[in-house]
Amino acid sequence: MSNIPESTQIGNHAVIEDDVSIGEHVVIGHQTVILQGTRIGDHVTIGNNCVIGIQPAANQRMRKNSNVKNELIIEAGTKIGNLVSIYSGSEIEKNVFIGDHASIRENVSIAEASVIGRAAIIELNTKIGRNCTVQTLAYVTGDTILEDDVFIGPCVSMSNDKYMGAQSYSLKGPYIKRGAKIGNNASLLPGITIGMNTIVGAGAVVTKHAEDNTIVAGVPAKKINS
Amino acid sequence: MSNIPESTQIGNHAVIEDDVSIGEHVVIGHQTVILQGTRIGDHVTIGNNCVIGIQPAANQRMRKNSNVKNELIIEAGTKIGNLVSIYSGSEIEKNVFIGDHASIRENVSIAEASVIGRAAIIELNTKIGRNCTVQTLAYVTGDTILEDDVFIGPCVSMSNDKYMGAQSYSLKGPYIKRGAKIGNNASLLPGITIGMNTIVGAGAVVTKHAEDNTIVAGVPAKKINS
Amino acid sequence: MSNIPESTQIGNHAVIEDDVSIGEHVVIGHQTVILQGTRIGDHVTIGNNCVIGIQPAANQRMRKNSNVKNELIIEAGTKIGNLVSIYSGSEIEKNVFIGDHASIRENVSIAEASVIGRAAIIELNTKIGRNCTVQTLAYVTGDTILEDDVFIGPCVSMSNDKYMGAQSYSLKGPYIKRGAKIGNNASLLPGITIGMNTIVGAGAVVTKHAEDNTIVAGVPAKKINS
Repeated sequence: MSNIPESTQIGNHAVIEDDVSIGEHVVIGHQTVILQGTRIGDHVTIGNNCVIGIQPAANQRMRKNSNVKNELIIEAGTKIGNLVSIYSGSEIEKNVFIGDHASIRENVSIAEASVIGRAAIIELNTKIGRNCTVQTLAYVTGDTILEDDVFIGPCVSMSNDKYMGAQSYSLKGPYIKRGAKIGNNASLLPGITIGMNTIVGAGAVVTKHAEDNTIVAGVPAKKINS
Repeated sequence: MSNIPESTQIGNHAVIEDDVSIGEHVVIGHQTVILQGTRIGDHVTIGNNCVIGIQPAANQRMRKNSNVKNELIIEAGTKIGNLVSIYSGSEIEKNVFIGDHASIRENVSIAEASVIGRAAIIELNTKIGRNCTVQTLAYVTGDTILEDDVFIGPCVSMSNDKYMGAQSYSLKGPYIKRGAKIGNNASLLPGITIGMNTIVGAGAVVTKHAEDNTIVAGVPAKKINS
Repeated sequence: MSNIPESTQIGNHAVIEDDVSIGEHVVIGHQTVILQGTRIGDHVTIGNNCVIGIQPAANQRMRKNSNVKNELIIEAGTKIGNLVSIYSGSEIEKNVFIGDHASIRENVSIAEASVIGRAAIIELNTKIGRNCTVQTLAYVTGDTILEDDVFIGPCVSMSNDKYMGAQSYSLKGPYIKRGAKIGNNASLLPGITIGMNTIVGAGAVVTKHAEDNTIVAGVPAKKINS
C-alpha cells in the first residue's frame, strides 16, 4: 500500500498503485491512474483521466531503452492537465505546467517553470531547460535538447532518424539553443542545431544548422535577416 | 447533488459532480467525468472517458482569463466522442459533433451543426460559426474567428502571437470569412484575414491577408488564381 | 455476460461489456472500457483509460459507413498503449503496436507487426500492410492504402477530399507503395500514388504521382534524385 497523506484530495475511482509517494496538499482527479514508482511533490495537481508512471513497452520492431529507472519524479507545484500520459524514468521539476492530452515519454527531464502545451508530445531521452514553452500539438522528438527559454510554436515537427528506419543510425534530434523561437508548423531535421536567440519562421523546413541570432525561413530554410 | 432525469443513460463509474443539469434522453459513457457547472441539453450523447466542464488552470508564466463564466452549455442533439476534454465558460450549440480526443478550451462558442474533428484543438476566446468543419488534428488557435461554412483541413496550424512570447502583444488569431477552405497542413499567421470563399492550398504558409474569392498556395502563399 | 478466462489480468474499474471475447493471458489496464463485439486474442495487452470497440457516430452533415461489421478483431500478441480509442469493424493483426493517445477508426485493417505511433490517427476504410511504421502524430486519412514496409514520419498529413466538402466526390486518400518513406510533416494530396521505395522529403507538399525509386522534396514536391 502507498502512504497517502490526509491532505491529499483524491477524485472518484482514482487508482493509486503500491509504491507511490505523495507530498502534502496534492490533488488527484477523478479516474486518474497513478502507477508504481511515482513520486509526487507537495502542492502538485493532476487532472482527471490521466495515466501517470507508465512502464515503457515495444513490439519486436521497436528499440527498447534498457536503462530506464523505475521511478517518475514530479516536483512541487507542478500542474498536470486531464487525459495526460507520463512515463516512468522521467523527472519533471518544480512549477512545470503540462496541458491536457499531452504525453511525456521515459528518460525525459523538464526543468523548472516550463510549459508543455495541450496534446504536445515529448519523446524519450529528451532534455528541456527552464522557462521553455512547447506549444499545443508540437512534437519534440527523442534524443533532443532544448536549452533554457526556448519557444516551440504550435504544431512544430522534429525528427531524429535521417534514414527513416532504413539503416542502423545513432538517433539524434535537434539541439535548440537558449532563447531560440520556432514558428508554428516548422519542421526540423535530425541532428541540426538552432542557434541562440535564432528565429525560425512558420512553416519553414530547417535542413541544416542555423547560426546564433539569425532569422531563417522558407523551404528549405534560408537566412533572411540577422 | 445534481438532478439526473430517469431518461439518462449513464455508463459505469461515470462521475457527475454537484451543480450539473441534464436534459431528457442524455447518454453519458463509461468513466466519463462531468464537472460542476455543466448544462447538458436534451438528446446529447457523450462518449467514454471524457472530461467535461474543466476549470482553467495555469502556471506563473501563462496568461489567465479573468472573465470566464463558471458554466459550460451543451445544447440539444450535440454528440461528443470519447476521451474528449471541454472547458467551462464555453457554449456549444445544437447538433454539433465533436470527435474523439478533441479539446475545447474556455470562452469558446461553436454554432449549430458544426463538426470538430478527431484530436482537433480549439483554443480559448475563439468563435466558430454554423456548419463549419474543423478536420482531424487541426489546431484553431486562441482569439480566432471562423464565420459560417468554413472548412479547416486536417493538420492545419494557426498562431496568434507575432512575437512568440518575446514582447507583450495583443494576441490575435486569424479571421476566416464565410465559405473559406483551408487545405491540409497549411499554416496561418497571427492576425491575417482569409477572404470569403477563398481557398488556401495544402501546405501553404499564409503570411498576409488573402482577398475574397481567390486561391492562394505556396511558401509564402501567393495568389494563383481567382 | 462475457466469458473472461482466469488468466486475464484486469485493472481496477475496467468495464467489459457483454459479447466480448478474451483469449488467454490478456492484460487490460485500469479504467479501460471494452465495448460489445470486441474479440481479443491471446497475450494481447491493453493499457489504461482506453476505449476499445466504439460504434461509429455522426451528425447530419457527416457521411455514414453503412456496411461496418459490429466486431473488432485484435489478434494475438498485439500491444495497445494508454488513452487509445479503437472503433468496431476493424481488424488488427498479430504483434501490432499501437501507441498512447492513438485513434483507429472503423473498417481499418492493420497487418502483422506494424507500429502505429503515439497520437497517430488512422481514419476509416484504410488498409495498412505488414511491418509499416506510422510515426507520432501522423494523420493517415480515410480510403488510403499503405503497402508493406511503408514508413510514415511524424506529423505527416494526408487528405482524401479534393474539393474540401464543396462537391460530391468519391473520397480517395493516397496510395503508398511498398517500402516508400514519407519525411516528417510532409503533406500528401488526395488520390496520389507514392512509388515503391520512393522517399518524400520532410515538409514536402506532394501534389501529383511520384514514380518508383525516386526522391521528391519541396513545395510543390519535385524529383530531386533517383
